[in-house]
Amino acid sequence: MLRSDVEYYLREDLGYNDISCTLVPDREVRAVIFTKEDCTLAGLDIAMEFFNYLGILAETEYKQGDTVKKGSRIFSLRGSSVSILRSERVVLNFLGHLCGIATLTRSCVDTVRKFSDTKVACTRKTTPGLREYEKKAVIAGGGDPHRFNLSDAVMIKDNHVKMMGIESAIESARKKASFTQKIEVEVESTDDALLAAGFGADIIMLDNMAPATVIKTMEALRKASVPEHIIIEVSGGIGPGNLEEYAKTGVDVISMGSIIHQARWVDISLEFTS
Amino acid sequence: MLRSDVEYYLREDLGYNDISCTLVPDREVRAVIFTKEDCTLAGLDIAMEFFNYLGILAETEYKQGDTVKKGSRIFSLRGSSVSILRSERVVLNFLGHLCGIATLTRSCVDTVRKFSDTKVACTRKTTPGLREYEKKAVIAGGGDPHRFNLSDAVMIKDNHVKMMGIESAIESARKKASFTQKIEVEVESTDDALLAAGFGADIIMLDNMAPATVIKTMEALRKASVPEHIIIEVSGGIGPGNLEEYAKTGVDVISMGSIIHQARWVDISLEFTS
Amino acid sequence: MLRSDVEYYLREDLGYNDISCTLVPDREVRAVIFTKEDCTLAGLDIAMEFFNYLGILAETEYKQGDTVKKGSRIFSLRGSSVSILRSERVVLNFLGHLCGIATLTRSCVDTVRKFSDTKVACTRKTTPGLREYEKKAVIAGGGDPHRFNLSDAVMIKDNHVKMMGIESAIESARKKASFTQKIEVEVESTDDALLAAGFGADIIMLDNMAPATVIKTMEALRKASVPEHIIIEVSGGIGPGNLEEYAKTGVDVISMGSIIHQARWVDISLEFTS
Amino acid sequence: MLRSDVEYYLREDLGYNDISCTLVPDREVRAVIFTKEDCTLAGLDIAMEFFNYLGILAETEYKQGDTVKKGSRIFSLRGSSVSILRSERVVLNFLGHLCGIATLTRSCVDTVRKFSDTKVACTRKTTPGLREYEKKAVIAGGGDPHRFNLSDAVMIKDNHVKMMGIESAIESARKKASFTQKIEVEVESTDDALLAAGFGADIIMLDNMAPATVIKTMEALRKASVPEHIIIEVSGGIGPGNLEEYAKTGVDVISMGSIIHQARWVDISLEFTS
Amino acid sequence: MLRSDVEYYLREDLGYNDISCTLVPDREVRAVIFTKEDCTLAGLDIAMEFFNYLGILAETEYKQGDTVKKGSRIFSLRGSSVSILRSERVVLNFLGHLCGIATLTRSCVDTVRKFSDTKVACTRKTTPGLREYEKKAVIAGGGDPHRFNLSDAVMIKDNHVKMMGIESAIESARKKASFTQKIEVEVESTDDALLAAGFGADIIMLDNMAPATVIKTMEALRKASVPEHIIIEVSGGIGPGNLEEYAKTGVDVISMGSIIHQARWVDISLEFTS
Amino acid sequence: MLRSDVEYYLREDLGYNDISCTLVPDREVRAVIFTKEDCTLAGLDIAMEFFNYLGILAETEYKQGDTVKKGSRIFSLRGSSVSILRSERVVLNFLGHLCGIATLTRSCVDTVRKFSDTKVACTRKTTPGLREYEKKAVIAGGGDPHRFNLSDAVMIKDNHVKMMGIESAIESARKKASFTQKIEVEVESTDDALLAAGFGADIIMLDNMAPATVIKTMEALRKASVPEHIIIEVSGGIGPGNLEEYAKTGVDVISMGSIIHQARWVDISLEFTS
Repeated sequence: MLRSDVEYYLREDLGYNDISCTLVPDREVRAVIFTKEDCTLAGLDIAMEFFNYLGILAETEYKQGDTVKKGSRIFSLRGSSVSILRSERVVLNFLGHLCGIATLTRSCVDTVRKFSDTKVACTRKTTPGLREYEKKAVIAGGGDPHRFNLSDAVMIKDNHVKMMGIESAIESARKKASFTQKIEVEVESTDDALLAAGFGADIIMLDNMAPATVIKTMEALRKASVPEHIIIEVSGGIGPGNLEEYAKTGVDVISMGSIIHQARWVDISLEFTS
Repeated sequence: MLRSDVEYYLREDLGYNDISCTLVPDREVRAVIFTKEDCTLAGLDIAMEFFNYLGILAETEYKQGDTVKKGSRIFSLRGSSVSILRSERVVLNFLGHLCGIATLTRSCVDTVRKFSDTKVACTRKTTPGLREYEKKAVIAGGGDPHRFNLSDAVMIKDNHVKMMGIESAIESARKKASFTQKIEVEVESTDDALLAAGFGADIIMLDNMAPATVIKTMEALRKASVPEHIIIEVSGGIGPGNLEEYAKTGVDVISMGSIIHQARWVDISLEFTS
Repeated sequence: MLRSDVEYYLREDLGYNDISCTLVPDREVRAVIFTKEDCTLAGLDIAMEFFNYLGILAETEYKQGDTVKKGSRIFSLRGSSVSILRSERVVLNFLGHLCGIATLTRSCVDTVRKFSDTKVACTRKTTPGLREYEKKAVIAGGGDPHRFNLSDAVMIKDNHVKMMGIESAIESARKKASFTQKIEVEVESTDDALLAAGFGADIIMLDNMAPATVIKTMEALRKASVPEHIIIEVSGGIGPGNLEEYAKTGVDVISMGSIIHQARWVDISLEFTS
Repeated sequence: MLRSDVEYYLREDLGYNDISCTLVPDREVRAVIFTKEDCTLAGLDIAMEFFNYLGILAETEYKQGDTVKKGSRIFSLRGSSVSILRSERVVLNFLGHLCGIATLTRSCVDTVRKFSDTKVACTRKTTPGLREYEKKAVIAGGGDPHRFNLSDAVMIKDNHVKMMGIESAIESARKKASFTQKIEVEVESTDDALLAAGFGADIIMLDNMAPATVIKTMEALRKASVPEHIIIEVSGGIGPGNLEEYAKTGVDVISMGSIIHQARWVDISLEFTS
Repeated sequence: MLRSDVEYYLREDLGYNDISCTLVPDREVRAVIFTKEDCTLAGLDIAMEFFNYLGILAETEYKQGDTVKKGSRIFSLRGSSVSILRSERVVLNFLGHLCGIATLTRSCVDTVRKFSDTKVACTRKTTPGLREYEKKAVIAGGGDPHRFNLSDAVMIKDNHVKMMGIESAIESARKKASFTQKIEVEVESTDDALLAAGFGADIIMLDNMAPATVIKTMEALRKASVPEHIIIEVSGGIGPGNLEEYAKTGVDVISMGSIIHQARWVDISLEFTS
Repeated sequence: MLRSDVEYYLREDLGYNDISCTLVPDREVRAVIFTKEDCTLAGLDIAMEFFNYLGILAETEYKQGDTVKKGSRIFSLRGSSVSILRSERVVLNFLGHLCGIATLTRSCVDTVRKFSDTKVACTRKTTPGLREYEKKAVIAGGGDPHRFNLSDAVMIKDNHVKMMGIESAIESARKKASFTQKIEVEVESTDDALLAAGFGADIIMLDNMAPATVIKTMEALRKASVPEHIIIEVSGGIGPGNLEEYAKTGVDVISMGSIIHQARWVDISLEFTS
């Protein structure tokens, strides 16, 4: 997080004349930040940026991605009481939001791990302005960040396929894209998956496919001796209720927007100890 | 939303060379944005800013705060196919997120309305960078935005009371604050509520109080002939499970961080129609 | 003041290649900033931000709001000669401007204090871009900052009243505003003041009213047993010539745009001492 | 003024939820901006930027620098009532401030014109953040903007002279400066003025010199056949009280920080006409 | 290019008071932009952004990547003379710089095409602040943009290999990277190229290898039946002098920082025609 | 360079998740930056800004403008390996680009010095966004930065002369410009040069004039006893091939866009030493 971002977020919460923070005379105090629920930690580096900016000494025994128990002390703080009050809300909002995402991701990854090494990835369904932080929270939870933005990899969607056909869409993408970029094709049938593999897609995304169809498609691809480096991803309509089923299909990646947009905040608090 | 914000959010999603958007030749197309769930609408003005910026003609028959059925067409779009593809993800991310907040707020407000006129308010627990939009989504859902930031009203918290006592905390706040600002005092007991009222608080917030205690406190305040303009707010630990009980206590405001931080996105989609 | 603002203001004065500052070789020097007139101090914190940014050690024995005599040394500086030259003009411009506002405010407050506890407030007539600093200079001078911006409180103006009537304007405001915001009504007659009080305005602003009418209105409000928490403000056409008369009316607040826009700079200088 | 500046200034005055502007339903209205005092106009282009940004049609029969009578209609406006309310305060703050500067400048220039063609210039004593606009207001008032910032021309000050002597200071400046920049030397005595002229200064600034000494110095320079292109400027302690005397000395430029920092706002108002 | 960037670049060239542009009264004029040398066109879209911002009507019969003859009219302009003068320098600076890059790229690509389909790519050696525009100029010239930044693909460099060995470096990268990212390994010997291929690198970059060694390495890779999707890139010390030799080696990509940093500006001019 | 610029340039190269930099565990290392060619140094201060921002200790025994031999160690670095990797590309890009300009400038200045003291200046043909740094590189190479932007001095061009005549163009410029600005006139003939001198131009630019005509014009000016302070500049079509000829003409300034836009990068590298 850049220093100008730190100032931006602080300004949003402080406004121009934060009297509440200065009612009590400023003095050196100690405080702790602790979690009221079991959770997986994310956003620790962001919290540190705010503490550094405001001259607060902060220590933690945890690192990004650690899973901790309810009651764990995430940070021990020492510094000016006014500065700690100023950091409180914005730091807790970041931690609550990002640990929520990491925790939900962790739980999905753990569910999947019972059956396979399949990666769990998020999507571009992220809160505007926070994509970088949310994707890093997914990483903290053991997930894969997928593309950061539209320029990261080339995605051929159903609309493209409808208008151009798979072959010429891939060919056109290959021509426009850099050799450093992968080309991903979204397909809705086993046949299209085979076609995409044949024309050299790097990633094939099985869109809104039932687990049984996924299994069938995986078999067809194996039979067709599709090169090993081609990655098979499933996406669309996957949630806690059917995650296990998809985990058993043997695909390489399960991507779920929900690990970001259905996550709820973890309850994290700050308390003065002196 | 300022034009520089529109550019900021677009840049986050587009990156530097969004090949996928330009695989198919640019041409004038039509598209619709529709909801796949019943929901209360918010963020329509934000969506319009993106459409305007990108030269997309957009029409809607709805306005902020309308509650619509699954399948409703929120926007009809006409414009360049490349521009619509560029707007798609960021507009849907805003709509999904903000309609989610408006919908949850609406539902809590409706629950409360069965019993009273009590307002439902959000708090400063908001996603960093998005407070303005989230608070307006709460308004769209029939809720009250509460303070926008620390400078909007003076809040005397338990820490202040512990260190200074209620009387001198209110006095000090009155002296530091502008006459245009209200002074709110957070109390944890009936006695402190009476004290705060006596010393001239404009708003008294009953913090983490059980419904029965709230009722007892309301009665004590009535008996003490507390002036009518003083607003009684409850906050802390209120959720769908106990909201009805609090709605019956006759307080003026129920504030719940959860209408923002526990909201889940509404499923909203864009589809090309030509 | 944010660090990005510090850079913005420095850049405005330095341009791209400030040769004058580097004609003489850089070396550690001492300098003082002193006032050539009696004045009330404001902007000390802003000056410190520039000194910190440029690595200049600065000490002061005064604090925001102190009234000092001509010749007083406001800051003692130690640091690189080039850095002190770079800070000079922008720091003096801030100090001259803001101490000017604090000094005029102080003088108006002192005039009023001879007769009453009435607050002296500024308005939204502030220099574009500097509202935060100017309002804090008013506070330094013993004044009240009034609303920071249009979102801070709801102001019902003569245009609203003309179009909707007082009752429905207040009702509509109450419905749109947050419970944390006060509602202020601007009235031009005693009758309207009584109406506004009856319909629950939090602040009643007597606009462009002669002192005698103000006194008459205050009596009418007293007779009508208007609740104590309602604040009476006068505004419009108040200046040094008639301030005493208004101070005697017993209103709660006298607001004057002139304490900002008619203030003249205090003459403050920097001098190298080694 | 850049569009991002327009947004910055509007945001300062509007905040996040300007209820007052939207109490009355939005509709197309007409309004006028007029002056309640005689004044010289400045900032018309800035006002137009705000009107354009907000979609308000604005017409004026005046141009930058016109001197107009009390009651003159500066702008006729047509547009959304909400937009006009949003533009009102920030536009009037710019106009009041900048017309104040233009009017004071005009008055000083007129005083000087009775005796000579001497230019009246401002200095770098400008309100932080507004230098560009204030200098253009000085131009509107018939004055000279002087240097915009420290990189515009090289200024050799008393400190430089003390440490290096006039000759080597000018030589060093000549070496460091671009050939496109003028070199100005600040002197406090006739002898130093002669020295500066001899060593090739482009501008000689007589600092804090009494009118009689200025006249003596001008004679000495004439006798020494100083080249015609060398410009003689006086500065320091010049105000309405002694401006005439300096105007008679025959110098090329009189520079006065006071035409900016002692200017008071012109009283300019907006009124709805339908 | 974002509108805020347009303003940033204009401001750099205009400063605060561009008198030269307004010496002659503003009027509608026509002008043309033409090239004084044969060149490949780039930056046309950027030029259009400036023309749009300033309200200049601009027409061109060319598109990004066209190769044109000396004397070709790149743009026909119509608009305010002041606006065209304001756009002139910044537009020509962009066109001169970017067409220079496109032209050099085109020439290298043409050289290579005589022998093979090998791609010519640039690197991260780009002018700070202009990477996006320079990479798009490379694309216009028929080249490949390579990675936009350090997050686009994972690059394992000699330092990594020295410290971890190729196998564990690739493994570690595979674990840290998203499945959407390619992993590139920089090697200096045939043996290491074989190792990298064996451990699953997506791209193998032969660093500073003589053409003969490259040929030998290509043969070794072929013999080892390295999967077809693995891309072989050469980089380091490649220039006009030896480009043909590398073009004959059969590698997939030749990357050359020099197509950006050794490009010289194309001489492009603006001329008023009325 | 402002801190916000440092962040801007770093962000351009790092993107959102720079895995390559963190493959190897972070530890304290040493590194050197050295040049692989003889060159004149520029941009050292910019490099230091990046090192400071990232907490890297950097030492150099050279200063801006020093000419050094191939192999010279420009910086010795100590700090976190991750931070040094993050600084590497952006620092080298600045150094390569700016030392290239300084080196070419130095070489042209040295060529000219064999014959005269004529200054070598650059123009406004600079890379967009980098003008400040490039002009400072020209200074480092012993050149003159000329105008920074259009507001720095008034330039009367052939278009102005055509439309208004030299006399009234100069008069109009004199009236519009500040007395602190020089007025430069671009002429294409000896006669016009004499006219411009007669009407008081401060700088006369002989545009696209052959060396012989320049010599003839210089003689004509001398005969006409043109005042000594008037500066004669030649510009247009000057390069390595004919620089000597112009150097012998006795003009004050030779300006060449090419010292910036035809400069090629110096090859500068970073190497880890521990």
